[in-house]
Amino acid sequence: MRLSRYFLPVLKETPSEAQIASHRLMLRAGMIKQATAGIYSWLPLGFKILRKLENIVHEEQVRAGHIPMLMPTLQSADLWRESGRYDDYGAEMLRITDRHGRDMLYGPTNEELITDIFRSHVGSYKDLPLTLYHIQWKFRDEVRPRFGVMRGREFFMKDGYNFDLTKEDALHAYNRHMVSYLRTYERMGLQAIPMRADSGPIGGDDTHEFLVLAETGESEVFYDSAITDLSLGERAVDYNSWDDCAAIVKEWTTPYARTDETHDEALFNAIPEARRKTSRGIEVGQIFYFGTKYSDAMGATVQGPDGKSTPVHMGSHGIGVSRLVGAIIEASHDDKGIIWPEGVTPYHAGIVNVKQGDAEADAACEAIYASLNALGLEPLYDDRDERAGGKFATMDLIGLPWRITVGPRGLKNGVVELACRRTGESEELPPEQAIEKLALAYAGHVLRPSL
Amino acid sequence: MRLSRYFLPVLKETPSEAQIASHRLMLRAGMIKQATAGIYSWLPLGFKILRKLENIVHEEQVRAGHIPMLMPTLQSADLWRESGRYDDYGAEMLRITDRHGRDMLYGPTNEELITDIFRSHVGSYKDLPLTLYHIQWKFRDEVRPRFGVMRGREFFMKDGYNFDLTKEDALHAYNRHMVSYLRTYERMGLQAIPMRADSGPIGGDDTHEFLVLAETGESEVFYDSAITDLSLGERAVDYNSWDDCAAIVKEWTTPYARTDETHDEALFNAIPEARRKTSRGIEVGQIFYFGTKYSDAMGATVQGPDGKSTPVHMGSHGIGVSRLVGAIIEASHDDKGIIWPEGVTPYHAGIVNVKQGDAEADAACEAIYASLNALGLEPLYDDRDERAGGKFATMDLIGLPWRITVGPRGLKNGVVELACRRTGESEELPPEQAIEKLALAYAGHVLRPSL
Repeated sequence: MRLSRYFLPVLKETPSEAQIASHRLMLRAGMIKQATAGIYSWLPLGFKILRKLENIVHEEQVRAGHIPMLMPTLQSADLWRESGRYDDYGAEMLRITDRHGRDMLYGPTNEELITDIFRSHVGSYKDLPLTLYHIQWKFRDEVRPRFGVMRGREFFMKDGYNFDLTKEDALHAYNRHMVSYLRTYERMGLQAIPMRADSGPIGGDDTHEFLVLAETGESEVFYDSAITDLSLGERAVDYNSWDDCAAIVKEWTTPYARTDETHDEALFNAIPEARRKTSRGIEVGQIFYFGTKYSDAMGATVQGPDGKSTPVHMGSHGIGVSRLVGAIIEASHDDKGIIWPEGVTPYHAGIVNVKQGDAEADAACEAIYASLNALGLEPLYDDRDERAGGKFATMDLIGLPWRITVGPRGLKNGVVELACRRTGESEELPPEQAIEKLALAYAGHVLRPSL
Repeated sequence: MRLSRYFLPVLKETPSEAQIASHRLMLRAGMIKQATAGIYSWLPLGFKILRKLENIVHEEQVRAGHIPMLMPTLQSADLWRESGRYDDYGAEMLRITDRHGRDMLYGPTNEELITDIFRSHVGSYKDLPLTLYHIQWKFRDEVRPRFGVMRGREFFMKDGYNFDLTKEDALHAYNRHMVSYLRTYERMGLQAIPMRADSGPIGGDDTHEFLVLAETGESEVFYDSAITDLSLGERAVDYNSWDDCAAIVKEWTTPYARTDETHDEALFNAIPEARRKTSRGIEVGQIFYFGTKYSDAMGATVQGPDGKSTPVHMGSHGIGVSRLVGAIIEASHDDKGIIWPEGVTPYHAGIVNVKQGDAEADAACEAIYASLNALGLEPLYDDRDERAGGKFATMDLIGLPWRITVGPRGLKNGVVELACRRTGESEELPPEQAIEKLALAYAGHVLRPSL
């Protein structure tokens, strides 16, 4: 993409309404614009990242054997009356009346709708196990929306639902979700720690939240530093193997890691002191096994192998996709701007032409631009007639991991500058070598265009 | 995908509420399920097609130089009061009050919101031309929703907006949109004819609808059959060239083609009788140049080259993405079911194992499944323990363009059967040759997975 043809409305001033880094930087980098309280338009750069995260979530869910579909944003109140949640849900549920006076709502979650689909179409244990998911806009009428997309009202979320014959089957689905979530976050360059969450009315060890460590997190977290050494890396995972999934879950849930809601001082103090860590965390996902709560209430049963009708065991599993954009920025920025991890960066490299209009510099930039595109990399070429200082500041602000700087002085010596946004290090080298280095930096990443 | 692990709830009975083929077939093929009046869940097969169409629209818009972004589903009423449309819009606008009593609405379209974004961030003619678009869910509170996704309440639509300094620039944007739309529909295997639409309050030759010919269409259409011979084919188009785009627009708008709204009997009768055609059509898109209507009302101006402030010339351009799923089916089905064009088919080929459990048949199916996947094709393998007749009926119903049938009898002679859904023709040939034929059939199609 050429910046002269793009729409990247960066702001010079820090918007006064933004209290946290991600909100401030998303506004300044021209990623979002508030449409009304807690509701945002995703400007081109922001949308590109959102779509990239959506694709990563899809890819990892499909890899785990989960089946994508799409439920609508608006729902009828009837199903929620059936489950009993229409009255239980408070003012955060946006209630709507249509032209015929029918009660509707903007879905904050989809247990009722998916259970209705299941009971309408599935009748036999032979159709199990089944996990359906979707990624859709949801609404929560927050009384005081704040922190940009971190706590907005209209938000984009993946929610998935498993249907299983037995509790044991459902617990494998739970484990499978945990593993797929760990992979998802790792691909995004995030370390999200599964923490035992408040188990709610069902009880048992049946829900974990995933938290990204960040000073601005909404929760206080307590953990054994051993957990931050864990990584799936290139490990092959067989999602059909109960043992494989259970082993990974055990590895990640053995070190102590809890939020203030479930914190146990005695257990925490049993950790060697050097490994005892307190921090803040941002919730970016949650998995939940809730048994037959909805299948009982809504009559979602299957005929088992013994011919008897039995309610299915279910769980809900969510990843906050729009929130993740903010969480990644909270976890990865400096005072100059955002620093995108290579797995999610909207463009793979910036090209800064320090002397636009200089025939040699223009030609060198065009050649680099074409070479990167030919490799399947997406460069963002700042081809505007602007001062070099402003171009550098924009690149630092929007946080592309790599920048190639091209100017007449370097070209005389046959070199361009390749700079790494994260380390700040740069080196001068011939254009071909800079391109090779970039290809190497992105080896192993999925390079298909995000759109 | 293996059917034993998929969620494809086909219906044997024809649902009584469905009056037209696409609605009936989408329900029967397990593509959609009604959530409530005019609002649908997209089951896995339906969602896969919807996503594929969405990707095609994105690809063709980006190719034309238009920039993707995403506006929210809910909007504040304030902007609509500014444009004057809050009161003008009737009961089809879904009006919502949030917990603080603020007036909101579920966006039926986005002229106000995009104009607000533009005026907030763009101030100079140097930032033009600019075309922004998004693909988002919209809502229209139809008094009597019907025909499934063809006339639903919650619908998925691409809407794009061009901002230009002069009327001439804006008319190039108009032409560029027409060309990109023609390409989009062609990739989907559709012939959508641009027809002069009702020009509304602005007047002039400034809006065209795109109609797909189908008996169940909502509009009566009159056209010169010469237009159905036109095709872009492999033509290279330079979207930056005013002449290129204008020439294509001229080619497509010269033959008479109008809906009943703009029909001119005298002009129609001037066509040689053999070429005079009357039919019905489904609207799948519309482009519209409306000048400074919104930029005047909302103060969206730029500083021109002369330093003077001038309102920008705008247009809106829409493609009904969810509606297209129905339109394609209306245009392409028979009494056995859907017939997907190769450019949009959810899976490239079906594999039917007529004797599941037979070691040789199972092995041959697995080998074909692996080979197709390795080629980047997505097969749907019916590996269920069902009668062959039922498997054939399901494949015919869901309409994959090609089916490979594998059975012990053929394998004894070293052959499988390759059948074409559209022609009904089939031939027996060795598995390797069947795979080669499929690869050839999809040569030139974008083969990346739709998810």
